[in-house]
Amino acid sequence: MSDPRQPLMDPAALNAFLREAFQQVADDFVVEDVKPFEVTVRTPIRTRHLRPGGTVSGPTMFALADVSAYVATLAMIGPKALAVTTNCSMDFMRKPADGVDLVATAKLLKLGRQLSVSHVLIHSVGLLAPVAQATMTYAIPPEPR
Amino acid sequence: MSDPRQPLMDPAALNAFLREAFQQVADDFVVEDVKPFEVTVRTPIRTRHLRPGGTVSGPTMFALADVSAYVATLAMIGPKALAVTTNCSMDFMRKPADGVDLVATAKLLKLGRQLSVSHVLIHSVGLLAPVAQATMTYAIPPEPR
Amino acid sequence: MSDPRQPLMDPAALNAFLREAFQQVADDFVVEDVKPFEVTVRTPIRTRHLRPGGTVSGPTMFALADVSAYVATLAMIGPKALAVTTNCSMDFMRKPADGVDLVATAKLLKLGRQLSVSHVLIHSVGLLAPVAQATMTYAIPPEPR
Amino acid sequence: MSDPRQPLMDPAALNAFLREAFQQVADDFVVEDVKPFEVTVRTPIRTRHLRPGGTVSGPTMFALADVSAYVATLAMIGPKALAVTTNCSMDFMRKPADGVDLVATAKLLKLGRQLSVSHVLIHSVGLLAPVAQATMTYAIPPEPR
Repeated sequence: MSDPRQPLMDPAALNAFLREAFQQVADDFVVEDVKPFEVTVRTPIRTRHLRPGGTVSGPTMFALADVSAYVATLAMIGPKALAVTTNCSMDFMRKPADGVDLVATAKLLKLGRQLSVSHVLIHSVGLLAPVAQATMTYAIPPEPR
Repeated sequence: MSDPRQPLMDPAALNAFLREAFQQVADDFVVEDVKPFEVTVRTPIRTRHLRPGGTVSGPTMFALADVSAYVATLAMIGPKALAVTTNCSMDFMRKPADGVDLVATAKLLKLGRQLSVSHVLIHSVGLLAPVAQATMTYAIPPEPR
Repeated sequence: MSDPRQPLMDPAALNAFLREAFQQVADDFVVEDVKPFEVTVRTPIRTRHLRPGGTVSGPTMFALADVSAYVATLAMIGPKALAVTTNCSMDFMRKPADGVDLVATAKLLKLGRQLSVSHVLIHSVGLLAPVAQATMTYAIPPEPR
Repeated sequence: MSDPRQPLMDPAALNAFLREAFQQVADDFVVEDVKPFEVTVRTPIRTRHLRPGGTVSGPTMFALADVSAYVATLAMIGPKALAVTTNCSMDFMRKPADGVDLVATAKLLKLGRQLSVSHVLIHSVGLLAPVAQATMTYAIPPEPR
């Protein structure tokens, strides 16, 4: 896109915001990179994310897709804790590598006043083929007047 | 459907299977009812499921939709720990009631040899309007010969 | 739902609206029944809807799901030609019966000021098992002031 | 992806296949480019694709997404008319430009023996921001033995 808008928050600002607003789960997500309309977020895999046999759980992948689309939106519009997910579609394509961190790249395809729409690819670190893709829609709360 | 197949597992058998196969998260899901091609599963909401402000988190709702579609499949085909989610689509329609249990009803719309397809409605206990809907596809592992 | 709202349009009014607003395709859709938050719409299958071998095409099923969710919304809010689909997810579960009409039942699960969310089941007339399910989100244009 | 597989069909072969297998609608789709795991398909917009006011209809966009994911799959595995769509999710993000051709780019994210999974972006020719995105799953028929 040739949309000239630039990010309003960098990785440090986004990580600080997540720690403050979602302290229960902030350890699960590290914003690693921010570009215009695109972010990269890592989930450091710990025992609580695993299913028997060592594979990463579905809710762990959903949570990463959800947070990365949220972070992609916030990076462009600034901190608004009230944005909410309205729709998500996910394809689970391959078994994640056992016990390896997951990294999501979320691209904002639409950033309107009321909605953002993203496409997210999730990889196991070190594997070239993605383990999952997701499309996410966020509703953006109206500005207070 | 007039499909004559009947469930092979009842709530007690399904709850025992979840506790054995997914011990880390089995406390989060209680199978309450099983009918042909339909199950009801409850998530007793605890502090770890909440976001700031008291609302239930998105991953908690995803996990409930995922498990209820899995349980609906297993109830009909018997215990197969290896069935995996391949696709999920969710609409988050309303804010769940604060701190109230969630109940999911999953209906199996297709039960083939390779795939099951379900529709899931999630309610906050005590509210008539659903908080979320989901469609889930599970891949069923082939029979060992 | 115990939502007390009642339909503002009956099948005759909805069919007249479709013929006026979408004259190119109105022959493809017949509104057969309207209840609160639920409608039934039929597509009379003609040669142009078929693929080689006689099966009904995917776009024919998509169009029926799309129109039935639109009609379910309009039945409750009155004629607004400008409502637009924002999201659709479909599972194609079985091959439709050759050359047989399709009937869709669309249930409105959410009817807010800005969005409606529906679940649609499509059947081949005479078959008990559904051929497809869809979830549809429509954006409702704001009222002129 | 570093998957070394190369396309088995080029644009001419794919266009010839579409004309033979789907003669009713083959005019609607022109395969313009084929790379490993990626294809570009154009829909030349004609009056029958338009809604009142000049906008391109939803089913036209669905059909383009569906065909482009199918073509992306066939390009890699060769002509198999029996591959069928099992799941589709679409976000309609912007109004297409009036009367302008649509171009879809479909990327194959997974190409297994039984399933292919794609991500599709649709643009109005001349506009940088995409009008729609879709994720498509195709079931691939087993090899005859």
